[in-house]
Amino acid sequence: MINENIKRRGLMLILSSPSGTGKTAIAHQILEKDNNFFLSVSVTTRAPRPGEVDGKDYYFVERKKYDEMVAKGELLEHAEFCGNCYGTPKKPVLDALEKGKDVLFDIEWQGARQIAKAAREDLVSISILPPSVNELKNRLINRGQDSTEVIEKRMKTAVDEASHYSEYDYVVINKDLDETVDAVKCILSAERLKRERQVGLSDFVKECFCETK
Amino acid sequence: MINENIKRRGLMLILSSPSGTGKTAIAHQILEKDNNFFLSVSVTTRAPRPGEVDGKDYYFVERKKYDEMVAKGELLEHAEFCGNCYGTPKKPVLDALEKGKDVLFDIEWQGARQIAKAAREDLVSISILPPSVNELKNRLINRGQDSTEVIEKRMKTAVDEASHYSEYDYVVINKDLDETVDAVKCILSAERLKRERQVGLSDFVKECFCETK
Repeated sequence: MINENIKRRGLMLILSSPSGTGKTAIAHQILEKDNNFFLSVSVTTRAPRPGEVDGKDYYFVERKKYDEMVAKGELLEHAEFCGNCYGTPKKPVLDALEKGKDVLFDIEWQGARQIAKAAREDLVSISILPPSVNELKNRLINRGQDSTEVIEKRMKTAVDEASHYSEYDYVVINKDLDETVDAVKCILSAERLKRERQVGLSDFVKECFCETK
Repeated sequence: MINENIKRRGLMLILSSPSGTGKTAIAHQILEKDNNFFLSVSVTTRAPRPGEVDGKDYYFVERKKYDEMVAKGELLEHAEFCGNCYGTPKKPVLDALEKGKDVLFDIEWQGARQIAKAAREDLVSISILPPSVNELKNRLINRGQDSTEVIEKRMKTAVDEASHYSEYDYVVINKDLDETVDAVKCILSAERLKRERQVGLSDFVKECFCETK
């Protein structure tokens, strides 16, 4: 692997896209063959579903505990959906970055904005957009999972999500899934070669570029 | 090609490395299959060699004209080698970037520093280092092109060049040429997907993310 002997700091990779654009498939393909990712376990106030394991699927916490974590700044980002609260514990992520592990976040622009505030230097954000709203609508219809009303609602959210593209480092138009996955992998590879992340370069240059023996 | 319908600004790609590290081979492989590069023609005060064509290999100018160009800020970067002066005309490069063409510079840290001063936002700089000075020395000996004295001199220059790694955006250790070429291509692909370069995104989002029809 390129630059494998150089110690580096991990990065936080955020993929955001309107529902139906392919983000889940893309994230899955990234994680499948890349063993350098730390999988963050979120906290949530919702009840566990059958089969879910505390500390593995989520950390299941009481609302009071969640509010404390927010107040103490222990969450990297947090949000509320459908009456339930969710958040990413900060310390495990920062420990992972320190060890050179990367963290993948499948979140929307609101969470991305919070992480940017907390840790801009470690963040790499990619906005993935469909070629058009009509193309997105066709994909959702063909996927056959949603009713007409839900699709209309996703369209409105898509327009809102797309309008936040200017807050991201990279923008990729997902016309072809394989092409898009390759592009995201390239961005990841490139960002791992950023000089500032390779904290071991100073030692490397000192050790390997001394006077010729 | 990914994002092919989005208008973007070109970028200036600088590859710097100690002599013998493989920069020429890497640049050649980048340019071979990528037709989005503008090939900058440098000015020089040296005399044309047999077969060289003015306006194609170089713009051959008198020293007085060269000094004028420097004084008027018409050169993006300039330097003197072995009593001859060289420089990159600025206007053709900026015109190329405006049209979405990229420009590849095979220059050392002194030229990279000048370009960074003139046009930081457009610049992507990669420092390519050998795995060690000893490895570099072996490569130069095996290449059989230089005398022992020249090799010793290149080693000193190599140590100097390597010490400037901190002025570059990316650092790649060239252990394996194919891996390094892939890494440079990834950096290029990723940088082309940077949101700020894709100047057509605003129009794209307006046109393609209007109310569903």
